[in-house]
Amino acid sequence: MVLNRKIDAIMSEVLFLSTGLLSGLLAVFVALLTYRKVMQADEGDDRMREVSHLIQEGANSFIQIQYKILTIFTLLLAIVIAIAFGLLGIPIAVSYILGSFASMSAGYIGLAVATRANRRTAAAAAKGGLNPAFMVAFRAGSVMGLMIAGIALVGLSALYWLWNIVLPDTFFDHIEMYRETALWEILTGFSFGASTVALFAKAGGGIFTKTADMAADIVGKIELHIPEDDPRNPAAVADAVGDNVGDVAGTGADIFDSNVAAILAAALLGAAIDVTPPSPPIVFGLLPLLIAGLGTLASVLGVFLVRPNAQDDPGPALNRGTYITTILFASLVLVVLFILEIDLVIALSAIFGLLAGVFIGFTSDVFTNDKGLFGFKPVQNMVENAEKSTANLILSGYSYGLLSAVPSVLGVVAALVASYVLGETATTIGLGGWEGGIYTVAIAAVGLLATNGLTMSSDSYGPIVDNARGVIEQAEAPHEATVACDKLDAAGNTAKAITKGFAIGSAAISVLALFAAFIESATVLLERPVVVNISNPFILAGVFIGALVPVTFTAMLILGVDRNAGRMIKEIRRQFEADPGILEGTSKPDYDKCIAIATSGAIRELMPSTLLAIGVTILTGVLLGLEALGGYLGGAVMVGFIMALLMSNSGGAWDNTKKLIESPEYDHNHPRYEQIHRNAVRGDMVGDPFKDTAGPSINTLLVVISLTATLFLPLIAILQLG
Amino acid sequence: MVLNRKIDAIMSEVLFLSTGLLSGLLAVFVALLTYRKVMQADEGDDRMREVSHLIQEGANSFIQIQYKILTIFTLLLAIVIAIAFGLLGIPIAVSYILGSFASMSAGYIGLAVATRANRRTAAAAAKGGLNPAFMVAFRAGSVMGLMIAGIALVGLSALYWLWNIVLPDTFFDHIEMYRETALWEILTGFSFGASTVALFAKAGGGIFTKTADMAADIVGKIELHIPEDDPRNPAAVADAVGDNVGDVAGTGADIFDSNVAAILAAALLGAAIDVTPPSPPIVFGLLPLLIAGLGTLASVLGVFLVRPNAQDDPGPALNRGTYITTILFASLVLVVLFILEIDLVIALSAIFGLLAGVFIGFTSDVFTNDKGLFGFKPVQNMVENAEKSTANLILSGYSYGLLSAVPSVLGVVAALVASYVLGETATTIGLGGWEGGIYTVAIAAVGLLATNGLTMSSDSYGPIVDNARGVIEQAEAPHEATVACDKLDAAGNTAKAITKGFAIGSAAISVLALFAAFIESATVLLERPVVVNISNPFILAGVFIGALVPVTFTAMLILGVDRNAGRMIKEIRRQFEADPGILEGTSKPDYDKCIAIATSGAIRELMPSTLLAIGVTILTGVLLGLEALGGYLGGAVMVGFIMALLMSNSGGAWDNTKKLIESPEYDHNHPRYEQIHRNAVRGDMVGDPFKDTAGPSINTLLVVISLTATLFLPLIAILQLG
Repeated sequence: MVLNRKIDAIMSEVLFLSTGLLSGLLAVFVALLTYRKVMQADEGDDRMREVSHLIQEGANSFIQIQYKILTIFTLLLAIVIAIAFGLLGIPIAVSYILGSFASMSAGYIGLAVATRANRRTAAAAAKGGLNPAFMVAFRAGSVMGLMIAGIALVGLSALYWLWNIVLPDTFFDHIEMYRETALWEILTGFSFGASTVALFAKAGGGIFTKTADMAADIVGKIELHIPEDDPRNPAAVADAVGDNVGDVAGTGADIFDSNVAAILAAALLGAAIDVTPPSPPIVFGLLPLLIAGLGTLASVLGVFLVRPNAQDDPGPALNRGTYITTILFASLVLVVLFILEIDLVIALSAIFGLLAGVFIGFTSDVFTNDKGLFGFKPVQNMVENAEKSTANLILSGYSYGLLSAVPSVLGVVAALVASYVLGETATTIGLGGWEGGIYTVAIAAVGLLATNGLTMSSDSYGPIVDNARGVIEQAEAPHEATVACDKLDAAGNTAKAITKGFAIGSAAISVLALFAAFIESATVLLERPVVVNISNPFILAGVFIGALVPVTFTAMLILGVDRNAGRMIKEIRRQFEADPGILEGTSKPDYDKCIAIATSGAIRELMPSTLLAIGVTILTGVLLGLEALGGYLGGAVMVGFIMALLMSNSGGAWDNTKKLIESPEYDHNHPRYEQIHRNAVRGDMVGDPFKDTAGPSINTLLVVISLTATLFLPLIAILQLG
Repeated sequence: MVLNRKIDAIMSEVLFLSTGLLSGLLAVFVALLTYRKVMQADEGDDRMREVSHLIQEGANSFIQIQYKILTIFTLLLAIVIAIAFGLLGIPIAVSYILGSFASMSAGYIGLAVATRANRRTAAAAAKGGLNPAFMVAFRAGSVMGLMIAGIALVGLSALYWLWNIVLPDTFFDHIEMYRETALWEILTGFSFGASTVALFAKAGGGIFTKTADMAADIVGKIELHIPEDDPRNPAAVADAVGDNVGDVAGTGADIFDSNVAAILAAALLGAAIDVTPPSPPIVFGLLPLLIAGLGTLASVLGVFLVRPNAQDDPGPALNRGTYITTILFASLVLVVLFILEIDLVIALSAIFGLLAGVFIGFTSDVFTNDKGLFGFKPVQNMVENAEKSTANLILSGYSYGLLSAVPSVLGVVAALVASYVLGETATTIGLGGWEGGIYTVAIAAVGLLATNGLTMSSDSYGPIVDNARGVIEQAEAPHEATVACDKLDAAGNTAKAITKGFAIGSAAISVLALFAAFIESATVLLERPVVVNISNPFILAGVFIGALVPVTFTAMLILGVDRNAGRMIKEIRRQFEADPGILEGTSKPDYDKCIAIATSGAIRELMPSTLLAIGVTILTGVLLGLEALGGYLGGAVMVGFIMALLMSNSGGAWDNTKKLIESPEYDHNHPRYEQIHRNAVRGDMVGDPFKDTAGPSINTLLVVISLTATLFLPLIAILQLG
């Protein structure tokens, strides 16, 4: 069915869509140019190239196996979707496949540049020192950042355009849906594709990286007392590969999927407004593309403005990039929306979202850095606990992790309530009431993620530098290069802490927006109000079951790492025993065996939990009803959000406790230094799968189950009635 | 206002009330007789008496200080209540004071017998061996068990009777409430008193016991390598005192408060049915007293049936007591309710609740014992992890703790839905619909807790035996006595795991019943349906804030233990340094200093979290409205329930991993045995505050905030309108 739109609305349609598409294309274009520039940098000496190529090949072999399995998975699920969804089936299935491949290619490009940039960063550090190395690493990171921001925008805008042209009016008459609503429903497939890939990338990469890290540490550091990144360790390359597949490809896919989901949720809610008379002055369904487009423009500019200082610390340069981009985006949104005469509440909601993101990132940083705030110094206190015993360190880190959820959750709640009130009380046609309120909540999520191009650039910088350090270590390059890399690494830590909080916060708000979109869709489908009243025991049962999902998922991932590390430990010990020359440094270990174990294990451990998440979601809806499914989503978000914060931040705090104890600031002549350091290492080992496997994967899980509920809604309704 | 009841209903009123009162009195009477019997047992030799008296005095000094502060707290809050609640103020305040004192006296009696029974158990073990010692310990435990069951029933029935006689009809006309509704509202004060005391007893005791345990272990076992319970350790007595104040008095107060809350919630919901025409055939508000009374009768019988076998393992005897009592109670309820022609759904709901409790206890045991089930062997697997590293052990224990929440939550959900459906579809006058459904949910909670007299008896047995072992160790009694005590201790472990699961499950269902009672009361007060629709952002905000309460509470308790242990560690080190004779065994350490530190620290650390919980509850209601307060309770229960299970069960699993590694079953000649054992000790140290401080205290916290919401409902409504 077709809407009769006023001329203004039609013009807004063209404007929003083309802004989205063009800014997306611009970001992709700049990313490709930057890629070329990074590739021109010096690749370093033979030894560096050799080490780096090992990492590059390891990452490739992981990604090839993973993508092969993902392709099979995607095609199988696409067939199910194509069959199950009637007339809409084919378009949704096609969009789903495209979403999967978009996410895979973004991840692939990021990985490709990261694994090529490590030797170049190492070479720059060895030759030119701090600043040139910083520029190589940051540029390489920005390839990933701009790529994922660009592909999200291009994918959504182009697909919308495409389906709009391809599908005839009779199609929409047949399925008895408005054209705009149906188009966004089709694009839900794109988002679902992006999020299933993200789950594999993030959680699979997370299992890979921590399997290698843990196994390398247990046999290398603890049993044989050889240093980290030592080339004699058969898991050394797998460990370096892990940083790339977990932190670069995984985090990229995660942010990509949150961004797409946020835009989609806002679009679904906007489309619902658009099709409800009276006809609104602009196309609300497409407005998120404009906002995301402006954010991407701000990110492109921001990336160019990041330059190292004359000083010896590149940290401020990175952070300045974030500040400038944030301010740039806020100004752009305010000005552009003012010129277009779009209700101010939209711009304000987007900015509220952004502020919530900054706030969450900031508070996460307070709980994990070694400086604290206003005399509240968690990490310093944890250092004192490490001096007492391992248990005290574990207990205090866990407690601070729990506490770190408090400001973040309150920040999200504040953004939620504030943006809701803005939209609910607005008087523009189309806004106002519950629909208007939840639309602005979704806009807040879009605003929070709009500058993801830059955030992700700063984040990817971290693992590249980390890898460069490994390359220098293994290539036995001069010590000054290691020192430079350590400084670069430290600069990346704040950015990393902020991005983690940011990723979790944005997933939380995106998922809340998806939750609202689910309620809206269910209301339209059932043609009655869908009230998720938790004083109804069936709905409360849904809430409880939902709450168990992130709990079970987390446990399965951690046990997966544990089992997988067990396999790798056996292999490492076997190699050392079989050939004593390895430990003496006279013969080479078999790096590939370890990479193969990490790869196959990651995929084997991940499959059950993914299928469980999708299966339980559909089953809850079928057995307990759509209201209970709403409760299920609510329960999952709440517990998942808290767990994600707990695990990421306690993990970060343990990591930094160890770093602080290893730093020159700490008294290395302490009579029990050896023991204190071992305590700190143990804390860090507990924190590793917390912060790098489970914590960040929960975000993606939440998006996947929310999209499953929204996408499969018509199917669940039918199965339930049947 | 007075109800016009049929003659049948009036007869049921007298019957239910007198059953409750008389069975309660019977339990108290049997408890006192048993106390006398325990006191007649031999007190052991001089050394045993000396050690035991130290513990007894330490416990007394803790309880005196705690009760002094609690009395002040109670009286202050009573004054606030008396002023704030208008005409109802004085009766509620008086009930509140009585509830506090009832809980305190139950705790005091349990502690009194436990601290006197340890030396008698030790003496029996030294002289007569296993069986006589078992009987002394179990009898002493049953004093506590029967006492708390009895006092709950006597308190509620007698107070109901009393206020019913004392308050004239004009009083109820004045406050415009039905007599029955108002009476139960007044008794909410009793329950609130019991639960605030329980929070202090459980969480305060938990901080005390783990402060002492951790400090004793760090300085004693880790730094100086002296064995556990060694009399040279200045914290040895504080450690033994801790077992009593945490496990006996704390758990007793916890179960007492859950039981009172369950009966109260069912009574509130029943009273709401009673005052709604048409007049039901029985007084539903008083029916919970009948059910709880039957459970108490079954417990009294069950206690007499516990006798040790001829074999060498008293474990089966303990478990048999539980099974017999459960079957006895189920039969009694079925028969009595059948004779009284009360709808079968009531008996079935009570039995569903009981089954849920047994199921939760059973699954908790599977996750924490060393045998596992159907090849799923968490603790065995954790032993293998302990062989890898401390981190692996911590990570796997944490993951199993998370997984252990799954069956328990599903068990509660099943009991919730099943008992709801029973009541909702029943056709007896008064039952049917939402009110009927949630009433039977509350009955399930009453059923689950009805046999608490026996469960608590088996549970209290554990710390008494544990303490007896300490007395034997410190009194340097023959080694055979230690062996006997170890066997007795092992027998208590299953009972303890089951009780913990049971306590958590019962608290969860009780709190769900209280949640329903809150909604019902709010509906009556506001004279409109109270719909806790979580797709409303304000209500969702309430859910999120509620979810943060158990999170913050847990963190504050653990950090409290940590800080307090730090203070005690300093004191222990100071004593060892000041007088080298202590370590040589030539001079005595100053035990009292450590007890004083544990005591004052426990109270100091607990106050903020308690006030926070009560304050945030009231504030959320005032700021966000009663619907959001409903969401708040829902969020708190969900997250709290999962956290309580996680912390109790992971803690239990770490504990048993260590025990297994210390047991003769494990290969003590393992080349790395020392290191593996140290790993296990570290796991246990992390688990200690998990399972003995935070985990079980969360139950009580949930009851406190639910009762705060229900009790302060009228006040919140006024403040909100103001």
